[in-house]
Amino acid sequence: MRLAIERSEAVKGRTYPNPPVGAVILDRDGQVAGVGATQPPGGPHAEVLALRRAGERAAGGTAVVTLEPCNHHGRTPPCVDALLAANVSAVAYAVTDPNPIAAGGAARLADSGVTVTAGVLADEVSRGPLREWLHKQRTGTPHITWKFATSVDGRSAAADGTSQWITSEAARADVHRRRGVADAIVVGTGTVFADDPTLTARLPDGTLAERQPLRVVVGEREISHEAKVLNDDSRTMVIRTRDPNEVIRALSDRTDVLLEGGPTLAGAFLRAGAIHRILAYVAPILLGGPITAVDDVGVLSIAHAQRWRFDGISPIGPDVRLSLVPA
Amino acid sequence: MRLAIERSEAVKGRTYPNPPVGAVILDRDGQVAGVGATQPPGGPHAEVLALRRAGERAAGGTAVVTLEPCNHHGRTPPCVDALLAANVSAVAYAVTDPNPIAAGGAARLADSGVTVTAGVLADEVSRGPLREWLHKQRTGTPHITWKFATSVDGRSAAADGTSQWITSEAARADVHRRRGVADAIVVGTGTVFADDPTLTARLPDGTLAERQPLRVVVGEREISHEAKVLNDDSRTMVIRTRDPNEVIRALSDRTDVLLEGGPTLAGAFLRAGAIHRILAYVAPILLGGPITAVDDVGVLSIAHAQRWRFDGISPIGPDVRLSLVPA
Repeated sequence: MRLAIERSEAVKGRTYPNPPVGAVILDRDGQVAGVGATQPPGGPHAEVLALRRAGERAAGGTAVVTLEPCNHHGRTPPCVDALLAANVSAVAYAVTDPNPIAAGGAARLADSGVTVTAGVLADEVSRGPLREWLHKQRTGTPHITWKFATSVDGRSAAADGTSQWITSEAARADVHRRRGVADAIVVGTGTVFADDPTLTARLPDGTLAERQPLRVVVGEREISHEAKVLNDDSRTMVIRTRDPNEVIRALSDRTDVLLEGGPTLAGAFLRAGAIHRILAYVAPILLGGPITAVDDVGVLSIAHAQRWRFDGISPIGPDVRLSLVPA
Repeated sequence: MRLAIERSEAVKGRTYPNPPVGAVILDRDGQVAGVGATQPPGGPHAEVLALRRAGERAAGGTAVVTLEPCNHHGRTPPCVDALLAANVSAVAYAVTDPNPIAAGGAARLADSGVTVTAGVLADEVSRGPLREWLHKQRTGTPHITWKFATSVDGRSAAADGTSQWITSEAARADVHRRRGVADAIVVGTGTVFADDPTLTARLPDGTLAERQPLRVVVGEREISHEAKVLNDDSRTMVIRTRDPNEVIRALSDRTDVLLEGGPTLAGAFLRAGAIHRILAYVAPILLGGPITAVDDVGVLSIAHAQRWRFDGISPIGPDVRLSLVPA
């Protein structure tokens, strides 16, 4: 399952609207016979690719999959058919498919005499590679991650407004990798005025990543036609509102949205309860002064603090990345 | 050496003005024959205690010590004499004694035919158990640790001033342990007015720890005679100044000072370059609003940020403790 999770992580961001799934076929002796992950829409699903690679070694073997194999005809035939045709004797999967159209795969496999084990490393998969897709399936709205860079004293810029760079090259490379799997990056007009960012996903050598998220600028002020966020590196959507709910509606076809807004926009999303993960890149510096990463989050008293939970604490170069999910 | 480090950590705060040293005696076969750590002033040093416990098994064995064995008569005879009298054949130590009066131990041991190895885990010892003592030896001034509790967005209180509690019981217990080894805890009058803290070191059951640091209140405002910081739980010094340098002078006989000041006092110490370690207890909550853990640290532009280095990132219950030292 760890190998399947690894494969699913590797295709994250490239499978929309399908989930990024990883699959491993073990032969009768428990040896890895084939590995696969969901291909871009229209291409084979993870199980089919892994079975294809395993060939005849799949017969009598075990399929290990991060998501319950699908049981419906979409652009490709059901994965359950492929697994039965390959004569696997067992299927182990992590997460049950919440999509009523695709679900039922496990039941059909079991009815056909296949040994089915559900829930293998389910937490790890649902917190990790499938988190955004599962959120979208369950709520119909995109999963929104608020990313910010901050000094250890909570500042997003020095007193004079300068902020390039708070975090290290290693942290910025990590952000670019994260952008590369997102469906959209959202900033406010304030960030465009202050930093004039390009909002692209770049490779460590500075060139554009193959896949670019949609760039989204939110706010009522008009931004310059010269703003870099409007250049040809990717598409850009400008939404003339300050209301997070309007932004969410405009992005309802997206799964994985990265909010890189400044204090005002981030505060609006946090007050609306519209953030599903926080990624804080904390640099070992002190800045002091008036510019904090977020202003008003709708909390007046400690008793009403917004309560989250750390689900990841990772050194990234000289910085620390703190990942939080709702408590 | 790891065992010696562990022993030295255990006596930290109880050996003033002597350094908290740990020692392990290995017999000829490399088996642990005796373990010791510096006792309170007038009591035996680490090596002597470990030798006493090892008895005759020390002969031909190895002494492992966190600090170069001392070579002078203070309140106790030189440890070098004891090691030679016990006929150890080798001595391995971590850190060379910077104190000219006590130094020369390694040379005398080598001259007497003992195999001497210096620098074993020296970094770990000088960053850890001996950090404050070494600082004091080298500079003549106390080592000052700034401790603060903060939300993940850098706030030390909610907008209405409430701050009890930002961090968890586990984090507060860790602070009490840290207080228990400090020589003094410093706060500003602002903290006394806002929180009326007792500033004691307490055990997990709420009772007072055996050893209480000196409590120090800094600032020009007069505090109430009813303030808890003036109660009988420990001694208290009130210093009528806002100048960190005056505070440092008043505490020049101390080694390990913990600054728990609010934004104003912490800012003054940081601007004066008078902080040698930062301990940030970060809770997974968001507060927003105007009350930050520190205000002005003397930085106007990102190019002049105060640069530190993470030397410890530890989950403490649901919180994270970030430890920083100057870069």
